[in-house]
Amino acid sequence: MVLESGEVSRDSTQKQVMNRGISVLELLLRTLAAVGTFGSALAMGTTKETRPFSSQFFFKAEYNDLPALTFFVIANSVVCGYLVFSTPLSIYQLIRSAAKISRIILVIFDTVMMALLTAGASAATSIVYLAHQGDGNANWTAICQQLNNFCGRISGSLIGSFVSIVLIMLIIITSTVALSQLHK
Amino acid sequence: MVLESGEVSRDSTQKQVMNRGISVLELLLRTLAAVGTFGSALAMGTTKETRPFSSQFFFKAEYNDLPALTFFVIANSVVCGYLVFSTPLSIYQLIRSAAKISRIILVIFDTVMMALLTAGASAATSIVYLAHQGDGNANWTAICQQLNNFCGRISGSLIGSFVSIVLIMLIIITSTVALSQLHK
Repeated sequence: MVLESGEVSRDSTQKQVMNRGISVLELLLRTLAAVGTFGSALAMGTTKETRPFSSQFFFKAEYNDLPALTFFVIANSVVCGYLVFSTPLSIYQLIRSAAKISRIILVIFDTVMMALLTAGASAATSIVYLAHQGDGNANWTAICQQLNNFCGRISGSLIGSFVSIVLIMLIIITSTVALSQLHK
Repeated sequence: MVLESGEVSRDSTQKQVMNRGISVLELLLRTLAAVGTFGSALAMGTTKETRPFSSQFFFKAEYNDLPALTFFVIANSVVCGYLVFSTPLSIYQLIRSAAKISRIILVIFDTVMMALLTAGASAATSIVYLAHQGDGNANWTAICQQLNNFCGRISGSLIGSFVSIVLIMLIIITSTVALSQLHK
């Protein structure tokens, strides 16, 4: 079997350029997702509202009063830490665009981290929804009338997390496309 | 550039066999995940407990009393439907093991569906946890003392969903490995 040398190398150079582009995009997405999760963890973790004791239920409202919000902070912190530590591997891919094993490892971890972040964000969202709306059937009262500031902060902190979920999803998809471009 | 014909074809046959194996595994995982989500949606959707009116809060407890549980049923149904409809594409990959575009499309949808299923399962879990434990700080009482049967069912229905999340995660990872094996 005879292949024309010029054609092969042009084709492979084109792919290398494309893969390098994908790696740059991935690095950017990774950085943005890290910022998003960091912001979410920080916003939720530092929320605190103190009300006079006469208020019906709360003396001091903090994120660790509700296990789902604590899980949210932990999930965001873990994912943020992972994103920061995975950046060197991402830069390595930028330099050696044919690195295959490292890409597969990153996709596996990215998938797990996406699941963790989604779990944290959704668990927190259902509690935040309950805090706003309450539930008549279960006799759970809405607590946001008493805690306006607290509720505003915990609602806002969800945004960074959901944006990061979408970003990690894009990272997984771009990685998959990059992998499909590689020769062995 | 001259390549030895025998070597190339042996290598590519090996890869084809491996990719076929991965496709069979993927089909199996897809079927199991469909069964899991179907079971979860069914178990949650048919839960019903009627209590005498003298009981403190509930007259009749159903999944649609709580929005998070409704979302759980919808998410599981959508993902189950997707898994069933994606099976033909998965079988197509089994036959034409070099199909690249269809694999990438499947990975994209699999990732989105995994996020949806994780969101549904986590939102429901945080509500089920609240039903069991209540929350003293927010003055939300545990409702499981009154509704043993209801709580048992909604807790059990989470299992199928979490198993399916892990299965879809494995589908994404195996697809990625298969894609990395393909020549263009």
